[in-house]
Amino acid sequence: MNFIQNPAQIENRSMEIIAPYIADLNLTFEETKIYSRIIHAAGDVEYAPLIKIHPNAINSAKSAILRGANIFTDVEMVRTGINKRTLKNFGGEVLCKVADDDTKKFATEKNITRSMAAMRIFGEKLNGAIVAVGNAPTALFEVLRLVREENILPAAIIGVPVGFVGAADSKAELAAQNKIPFITVSGTKGGSSIAVATVNAILYLLDNSRD
Amino acid sequence: MNFIQNPAQIENRSMEIIAPYIADLNLTFEETKIYSRIIHAAGDVEYAPLIKIHPNAINSAKSAILRGANIFTDVEMVRTGINKRTLKNFGGEVLCKVADDDTKKFATEKNITRSMAAMRIFGEKLNGAIVAVGNAPTALFEVLRLVREENILPAAIIGVPVGFVGAADSKAELAAQNKIPFITVSGTKGGSSIAVATVNAILYLLDNSRD
Repeated sequence: MNFIQNPAQIENRSMEIIAPYIADLNLTFEETKIYSRIIHAAGDVEYAPLIKIHPNAINSAKSAILRGANIFTDVEMVRTGINKRTLKNFGGEVLCKVADDDTKKFATEKNITRSMAAMRIFGEKLNGAIVAVGNAPTALFEVLRLVREENILPAAIIGVPVGFVGAADSKAELAAQNKIPFITVSGTKGGSSIAVATVNAILYLLDNSRD
Repeated sequence: MNFIQNPAQIENRSMEIIAPYIADLNLTFEETKIYSRIIHAAGDVEYAPLIKIHPNAINSAKSAILRGANIFTDVEMVRTGINKRTLKNFGGEVLCKVADDDTKKFATEKNITRSMAAMRIFGEKLNGAIVAVGNAPTALFEVLRLVREENILPAAIIGVPVGFVGAADSKAELAAQNKIPFITVSGTKGGSSIAVATVNAILYLLDNSRD
């Protein structure tokens, strides 16, 4: 069988292939890791000019993780993909309420999406936490409303919802505000895999067992 | 708040936006559903010319689900995203072994990826089942080896691993064989979200509670 089968070799080779596509962006070491993991997770170098990292986003997210902050996700796929082992070492956990009965009931009553309802129910728990939205623009709009109208202050928002209805607008609104450090991707692209890649890139920066 | 919040409206509007990008491809009704869900899940209309559906793939996958076949996935994110409610109605379940202790042990011994080891351990269980590979080219290469060398015969292979190391090659090999009906995406793009979108599109074709 003529293909690379060793996980570390696969990752290193992938990062080598991606490097030229981000060489001109003057990224820091840490930004390079995040860009590379996003591009790797999408198999799409056209992400390079779309990624937006607020100057304080990486430090704020790292500090939050180090003090044991939780990560709140919009959908179960994002919760599943995040590296829980590293997060748990610092005391945090990954939480998602989209499939809970109270969330479904609330969403049906209000005729809103379940992931939007879940963020509203989290409410003050998002203070000082990391929010990762990979799927639902409505969830990101709701988090931004909580910030704006209810003075909820997450440590960082990873907001990369995907699709043609609201995703680009919700991410433009995230990038236009300056109250909460953020990482996002402009336009219609994004998704759960991109949210997971971003969060895990940050977690790996804190994991001394990895180089 | 000036954005669509109703889930059915969001989905319908998204499908309307995607329609012109696939209008020239002469797709069947069922193929249109699969293309639309993939493009929606990626937020990327450039998927349209990359998607390859074997002429018998949709029927073979539907028949398998109707007789209660299981779906085997390479990673937990794919397992998480698949609509279990619809599958369960027909008696099937979604199985993934990538995080199991015996898989880890086997992968370490052989110095191969865990998702590749997991497929080898599944072995004959893949006969008549649906295989969904969203992340790991090595898992897809292993499934194709099981087909070729051990005469394992899945009902259909949804093979959309992502990235720059092996993904394009593994998908080219999938599309070049004619023994097992397949759905794939050429090139480096793909991922867990794409595998999930494909499987769920097929499940929704069988779900009379949805239009």
